[in-house]
Amino acid sequence: MASEFDLIARYFTRAAPTGLLGVGDDCALFPVPPGEQVATSTDLLLEGRHFFPDVDPKALGHKALAVNLSDLAAMGARPIGCVLGLALARLDEPWLAAFAEGFHALAAAHGCPLIGGDTTRSAHDLAISVTVFGAVPAGQALRRDGAQAGDDIWVSGELGAADVAYRLLDGQYPGNPAMLAATRGALEWPQPQVALGLALRGVAHAAIDISDGLLQDLNHILDASRLGATLHYAQMPVAGALASLDEALLRRAVLGGGDVYQLCFTAPASRRDAVLAAAATAGARVTCIGQTQAQAGLAVLDSQGQPLAELPAGFDHFPAA
Amino acid sequence: MASEFDLIARYFTRAAPTGLLGVGDDCALFPVPPGEQVATSTDLLLEGRHFFPDVDPKALGHKALAVNLSDLAAMGARPIGCVLGLALARLDEPWLAAFAEGFHALAAAHGCPLIGGDTTRSAHDLAISVTVFGAVPAGQALRRDGAQAGDDIWVSGELGAADVAYRLLDGQYPGNPAMLAATRGALEWPQPQVALGLALRGVAHAAIDISDGLLQDLNHILDASRLGATLHYAQMPVAGALASLDEALLRRAVLGGGDVYQLCFTAPASRRDAVLAAAATAGARVTCIGQTQAQAGLAVLDSQGQPLAELPAGFDHFPAA
Repeated sequence: MASEFDLIARYFTRAAPTGLLGVGDDCALFPVPPGEQVATSTDLLLEGRHFFPDVDPKALGHKALAVNLSDLAAMGARPIGCVLGLALARLDEPWLAAFAEGFHALAAAHGCPLIGGDTTRSAHDLAISVTVFGAVPAGQALRRDGAQAGDDIWVSGELGAADVAYRLLDGQYPGNPAMLAATRGALEWPQPQVALGLALRGVAHAAIDISDGLLQDLNHILDASRLGATLHYAQMPVAGALASLDEALLRRAVLGGGDVYQLCFTAPASRRDAVLAAAATAGARVTCIGQTQAQAGLAVLDSQGQPLAELPAGFDHFPAA
Repeated sequence: MASEFDLIARYFTRAAPTGLLGVGDDCALFPVPPGEQVATSTDLLLEGRHFFPDVDPKALGHKALAVNLSDLAAMGARPIGCVLGLALARLDEPWLAAFAEGFHALAAAHGCPLIGGDTTRSAHDLAISVTVFGAVPAGQALRRDGAQAGDDIWVSGELGAADVAYRLLDGQYPGNPAMLAATRGALEWPQPQVALGLALRGVAHAAIDISDGLLQDLNHILDASRLGATLHYAQMPVAGALASLDEALLRRAVLGGGDVYQLCFTAPASRRDAVLAAAATAGARVTCIGQTQAQAGLAVLDSQGQPLAELPAGFDHFPAA
């Protein structure tokens, strides 16, 4: 059996790009262009909590990095590199090889090489910690507190599929192989909207990535910007695969479903053309779903203009008792 | 019971220093001085593996950051900030408050504020992920691959106490309250040698922090620099509390004991005065324990100049079968 150091070398060491000192010293080193700031985000993913024990390890390697790249996207930051902490309950080389393949493929696609890490043994479950670094010109980051009253509220991509896939896999919904096949990619292979985030610099006022659910994440923008909002349910970009879903479950998936990793952002109504041009540049679909307002509160109107009575709660890792 | 967001706010949000965007956006932001590079390191600590379940949470908060600051020290990097991932099996507010107190106190002592994080629930054990960021002028980092043949090999502080404290607490040694009292601080409250690392820039050729054991960590310098070394056991700065320990156990603790978080570094023999001056600046004790050589291999000589026959293996999270 290989030693820890052999394993790290085999699966996680890549030749560091010029200018970066990668895996194999006390710290990794990277330069930052003059006038730019470092943006950083960290996520801790646990087996049984953030992913199923039998998930495809290649998809897991992809997703562990994707959720962090999504945070860079939401700041409008360009990826520089990442570090990985991995606690394994057992040494399974095919599993490690597949995990590393999924991780490195997404890292290469976004110019975000793995430059450091820590591998250890876990007593029970697999734990994955990823921290990403990016760069953004000083003052140009897409923050949560930049929204202004009267902004359009936009989302990228489609909503609801990841939540439905999760509930199908978790046994909360009766078996539905066709719907699972059509939604599973959204849950297991989220595509971080890095290009869209970059294109929205100077256009969007505020942005967040949707990890806990549209309403909960939008609320973070509204809280930070001291605003309210009105959304139009009929304008939501619902994933086509969900057409046959019960209406109440569909609303829950669209408004409250997590694991989306699309961007929710605000921009002045006067910049609609610029938003659409940014989306075209990034190859992303964007949809205007409502507007912010000075008055506090968050309402979702139905097609008759009536507020939906019951809104789904977001995902809270420690729900109130 | 408070929600996750309330908890994060209560214990882990501090007002971010000027120029930094702290907890509460998709990413934290920090500037880097012109001409400096970012140094980063990450560690994943698990209950039962890296610390005992009943450890004082204030000490644990201290140590979780200390082991990462020690990596910055070993690069000669000045701390900028850190991010924390915390997976908790249960919500215990007094525990969280004490953990945060220990963490923030060390962060404040080293100018390394917490600027981001992720809190989640764990199915079984506590997991702690810390990533630190520092800055070092381009080309001045203390790397592992910079040692040259004929360098002196130095260590800071004392050796052996943390290993003995661990084995006493783990029940590997018979109860010895006096020795536990004299060694426990080294295990639970390691003091990262950040000031020494900074003072050694331009003096030391190579450096590493001792986390897995003196011989194993020194070997990383020797491997990276393609050198061998000869050490003198009689010169080792053995912790005074270990005077009554059996000689074989003492050697194992001094040469192979982990969790030391002191620096092992090399410097030219012509710079001995500069090394001592750097140590005086940093308020650190440093001891010359041997020399590097072009010939491969690592020998430890006894006071008669004879090589010690049995050298302890280092700590490997996945030992060879």
